[in-house]
Amino acid sequence: MQRVYSFMLIFVLTAMLSPFSAQAKKAISVQDLGGYHIGGNEVQLKGLPVEEKALTPGGPVRKLDPNGEFEAGQMYVQYVHLESPKAKYPLLLWHGGGLTGATWENTPDGRDGWQMYFLRQGHNVYISDAVERGRASWAKFPEINTTAPVFRSKQDAWRIFRFGPTYDKISERKPFAGQLFPVDKFDQFMKGSVPRWTSSNAWILKAYGQYVSSFKDGCVIVAHSQSANFALTTALAHANNVKGLIILEGSGAPKVDGTDFASIKHIPQLHIWGDYMEESPIWQKYQVNVKAFADASKKAGASVTWIALPEIGIKGNSHMIYQDKNSDDIAALVQKWMQEQGLMK
Amino acid sequence: MQRVYSFMLIFVLTAMLSPFSAQAKKAISVQDLGGYHIGGNEVQLKGLPVEEKALTPGGPVRKLDPNGEFEAGQMYVQYVHLESPKAKYPLLLWHGGGLTGATWENTPDGRDGWQMYFLRQGHNVYISDAVERGRASWAKFPEINTTAPVFRSKQDAWRIFRFGPTYDKISERKPFAGQLFPVDKFDQFMKGSVPRWTSSNAWILKAYGQYVSSFKDGCVIVAHSQSANFALTTALAHANNVKGLIILEGSGAPKVDGTDFASIKHIPQLHIWGDYMEESPIWQKYQVNVKAFADASKKAGASVTWIALPEIGIKGNSHMIYQDKNSDDIAALVQKWMQEQGLMK
Repeated sequence: MQRVYSFMLIFVLTAMLSPFSAQAKKAISVQDLGGYHIGGNEVQLKGLPVEEKALTPGGPVRKLDPNGEFEAGQMYVQYVHLESPKAKYPLLLWHGGGLTGATWENTPDGRDGWQMYFLRQGHNVYISDAVERGRASWAKFPEINTTAPVFRSKQDAWRIFRFGPTYDKISERKPFAGQLFPVDKFDQFMKGSVPRWTSSNAWILKAYGQYVSSFKDGCVIVAHSQSANFALTTALAHANNVKGLIILEGSGAPKVDGTDFASIKHIPQLHIWGDYMEESPIWQKYQVNVKAFADASKKAGASVTWIALPEIGIKGNSHMIYQDKNSDDIAALVQKWMQEQGLMK
Repeated sequence: MQRVYSFMLIFVLTAMLSPFSAQAKKAISVQDLGGYHIGGNEVQLKGLPVEEKALTPGGPVRKLDPNGEFEAGQMYVQYVHLESPKAKYPLLLWHGGGLTGATWENTPDGRDGWQMYFLRQGHNVYISDAVERGRASWAKFPEINTTAPVFRSKQDAWRIFRFGPTYDKISERKPFAGQLFPVDKFDQFMKGSVPRWTSSNAWILKAYGQYVSSFKDGCVIVAHSQSANFALTTALAHANNVKGLIILEGSGAPKVDGTDFASIKHIPQLHIWGDYMEESPIWQKYQVNVKAFADASKKAGASVTWIALPEIGIKGNSHMIYQDKNSDDIAALVQKWMQEQGLMK
């Protein structure tokens, strides 16, 4: 009997002391949640031929005139406001190229994503779909967008996300040794892949600028991959609205020459990089620009933390750091950094 | 002084008695929220020419091979689970054609949408983006999708959503008298408009079938416009998974001939229609098929409630009933019906 009680005591103490198991089960008190579009403007199409089609199976045939006015260049935002946030500023999660905001929700293997993690840590979390991705919608091409969209194949994703070496046949698809991305759910991950354009960076940046400047009291941005360049550029343009920059494997950064780093020296930067960089010449190239930006920021007086995860003993992370099996551990690192930078209440 | 106290007493009593103002301010206790993709399968592209492009401004040029394997035909789902739901089944909100699940979030004029309304009423709310819309992504055309996408112009939306009569110039754009859609936010509404395809109904239906059958204990579906046909067809195929059908201005329904209505006689149906039907020959045509389906369901023994809002004294609703200025009132109607049908605990 004594042993049973001791066992129960240990069980209860363990449950009390384990922050993860306790957090995973606790409900959060949400003041409200919702979504909206921001940015964009009206564009007009003229002189295109009219068609006749039924839009619903068995429904009547309708005249479909492709001409007229359309909205283009807007982005989509989704927010969850807590009843009692513990963070000083809203936390904005920005997806990378070929993805949407959905990437911050559940991981491909069904665990809580960073959205839920940071909500439980007391952040008002904002997730966006950049111009032309997901619920932001996309504009007709080549009439409005001048180029055709780029679709990412599984082969390309496997290589660029550093899940494993390039393969020709699926049967040859092997992950890198020690890979932490849930590669058995790779097909599930690829269902979230969306087309991208190469001709619309100005539109994307403009909408991000309107989005960030709408946070009059400031915001903290978590930017992954392609969105790193947009986040750093937007921070330079709207420095007073940005209180922290968390860059996950940035694929680019504004050029150092001609950049006024003094204007962003008050914004702390955290850069995090995964594993297998030596396997990826393209990521080595991408990293050079981001490192130059980080170094110049530091030189100008900014607090810059540069973490290559393997160097601190965390091995096996892919490019999709926030979906890898240790995503909670990396999120905890980010949370600790935010605490240290005075970004929590 | 006496008058001041009386006034305060009335004010306090009014605040206590008004369910809306009380609800609008009360936080909800959320167990978890997230999103995932469901349905779809791998498709392969071969023999397309390889291109070279930089994907990030200033970034290195990459070889872009459009060939390979892709996922196609999946849909996207987002959920909010309450700590203590009061509804017996999850409530699934299905958007109409040319829209995404975002349409159930805030209204174009920034009020709470039906997502927040039904969360406050105690439903676990699921919002989806149908195949090829929003975060569901879309497949390359004409290689995978055989047809080109259809974009909805502002002119077309103004007419088909029954905001006002057809117009040629924007200066001539006038709403119908008494219009309840927030027409001053029409451009904002159009930022949520997405392209659609006319060749992919089989894919859309297949994914909806997988989605609905994943609710082993049943679900209640709210389907708007284009999704009505998908919801009714899916209910016939997965009758045991569907516990209620709320059809908002269905644009179509399965053909009555050959349909086994006995199989869905246990599923109560609520149909709601807005105003200005006499101004829209196309909506009169669409309505005929839905009415025939509703009548045949009733004849087979189903509980069918058919509400033309103007006939019960509610005038001014557009096709976007759940975004019109009285969206809370219509939601309350739906909530009352669910209560009466035994769908609440």
